[in-house]
Amino acid sequence: MEILDGKHIAQTIRQELHEQVESLIRRGMRVPSLAIVQVGNNPASTTYVTNKLKACREVGFNARLVSLPADISQQQLLAKINELNSDNSIDGFIVQLPLPSHINETTVTCAINYHKDVDGLHPHNVGLTALGLPGIVSATPRGIRELLMRYGITTEGKHVVVIGRSNIVGKPMAMLLMQKPYLSLPKMSAASLGDATVTLCHSKTRNLKQICLTADIIIVAVGQPNLLTADMVSEGTVVVDVGINRIDDPSSEKGYRLVGDVDFQHVAPKCSFITPVPGGVGPMTIVSLLQNTMQVYMDSITV
Amino acid sequence: MEILDGKHIAQTIRQELHEQVESLIRRGMRVPSLAIVQVGNNPASTTYVTNKLKACREVGFNARLVSLPADISQQQLLAKINELNSDNSIDGFIVQLPLPSHINETTVTCAINYHKDVDGLHPHNVGLTALGLPGIVSATPRGIRELLMRYGITTEGKHVVVIGRSNIVGKPMAMLLMQKPYLSLPKMSAASLGDATVTLCHSKTRNLKQICLTADIIIVAVGQPNLLTADMVSEGTVVVDVGINRIDDPSSEKGYRLVGDVDFQHVAPKCSFITPVPGGVGPMTIVSLLQNTMQVYMDSITV
Repeated sequence: MEILDGKHIAQTIRQELHEQVESLIRRGMRVPSLAIVQVGNNPASTTYVTNKLKACREVGFNARLVSLPADISQQQLLAKINELNSDNSIDGFIVQLPLPSHINETTVTCAINYHKDVDGLHPHNVGLTALGLPGIVSATPRGIRELLMRYGITTEGKHVVVIGRSNIVGKPMAMLLMQKPYLSLPKMSAASLGDATVTLCHSKTRNLKQICLTADIIIVAVGQPNLLTADMVSEGTVVVDVGINRIDDPSSEKGYRLVGDVDFQHVAPKCSFITPVPGGVGPMTIVSLLQNTMQVYMDSITV
Repeated sequence: MEILDGKHIAQTIRQELHEQVESLIRRGMRVPSLAIVQVGNNPASTTYVTNKLKACREVGFNARLVSLPADISQQQLLAKINELNSDNSIDGFIVQLPLPSHINETTVTCAINYHKDVDGLHPHNVGLTALGLPGIVSATPRGIRELLMRYGITTEGKHVVVIGRSNIVGKPMAMLLMQKPYLSLPKMSAASLGDATVTLCHSKTRNLKQICLTADIIIVAVGQPNLLTADMVSEGTVVVDVGINRIDDPSSEKGYRLVGDVDFQHVAPKCSFITPVPGGVGPMTIVSLLQNTMQVYMDSITV
């Protein structure tokens, strides 16, 4: 069993991005620039936003926080988005979710210029992913694909079972892996992307255990500790755990600890590869945001 | 075994649409209007276009053929599309595929105003389908969903195996059936849409037979006669055959006959329901185009 060390891979990619930025600077060019819109000050969101801004700055991107009050009207937020859409000094931006309940997240996501939608959540980008066309891929699926690639795990002809049908993980993940391969990264040519037989499972699925037992790769993104147990996993399966759940732990300084959706202790010994939580998918998601921003930047200078 | 009679259901829906149009006329309102762009005069395309125009006129829509020469430049075609995009007398239009090889189909599809994209092929509409949001659904998947619904076949919790990953059938079909249900049609409330466990199979799939044997519903859209054989189908399966293949038949007047992707003779006795070819999915695809046009029209008058 080998650990898919997302923390380490993310660090490697950040280093690669940092070198790209230094090369841009040496050539007298501007650096990629990302803005993050945060509405209100939900503590979990603040943690995510802080980590994203920090990661941006570490690789040398310009990173700007646009902090808006929790009681901002939807119309005011949309006006701010329009402003960022037409701000040429910003390559891409994201609106940190969740938003306060008086604001419609779909309306907000659709208002972002899809060329700047570095979270890859706009319907146009989701559609490009679904059609197998180049576009901005949703950050977590992009990160998982990258992680598999960096470990030389191919997906061609493999049976991939995706559990969970969220718009930010499960569905775009399934779409990405079912495509004919169209992207190749340097150094990674041996690894085939896409071309998987994909089964998408969710709360209405019957026989989840039987389906999982036929999988070569299982990707779990539900948000429920111990959803995937050892009896559901065949020997040699690759397991990717997207869940991040807080469970009480009086022995911990914070009073809680983070676990994924997988019963890691019992599942791991059966796996060929498995992601830990934390340190697996999470760091890859953040680095994907940086890669998406770099992609938009590169497109803008090559057009 | 019961035949899923697409021809009959399509006739019923055309009658419903005709009544809707008559009601619009009685209220002094304009009628829905569709344009079809045909480039060149490929005989198969001409047959499809003629059938679509005929179907439009039968239900009382305005239908306009925009016939363009085979050697039109891509730029000229895009100019024509822009004209239709801003023509308020047209609710929706389609560009009949395939296009001559000097024209990029993706560029053309993306140039259509997605609000008028009644084929549902624009990335924005594909993305809405993938996200489970209201939008224009690709015609063939919409037709298949409607056919299942009209026969009271539910998909909740069922294992649906989709064979074929084309952008016009396989992928949008898979996406449609994996969603949480969001659409309901009158008279059909007993039938649940979506909520299926979906497996998408294709040319790289291993163990296709084993996967098919676990299916409650199999949807085949490959374009290969006899792809699905009796040994691949469990008793009681619902089989939907999207293939339309010409095979030589000297005993026929035309010298050929149409068959699907399913070995109908041997598969049908094992099925609970099965679509014939012709007369199954084909008529539903055309009627979906009419329903999409009516949907765009209704949206335009209720905004």
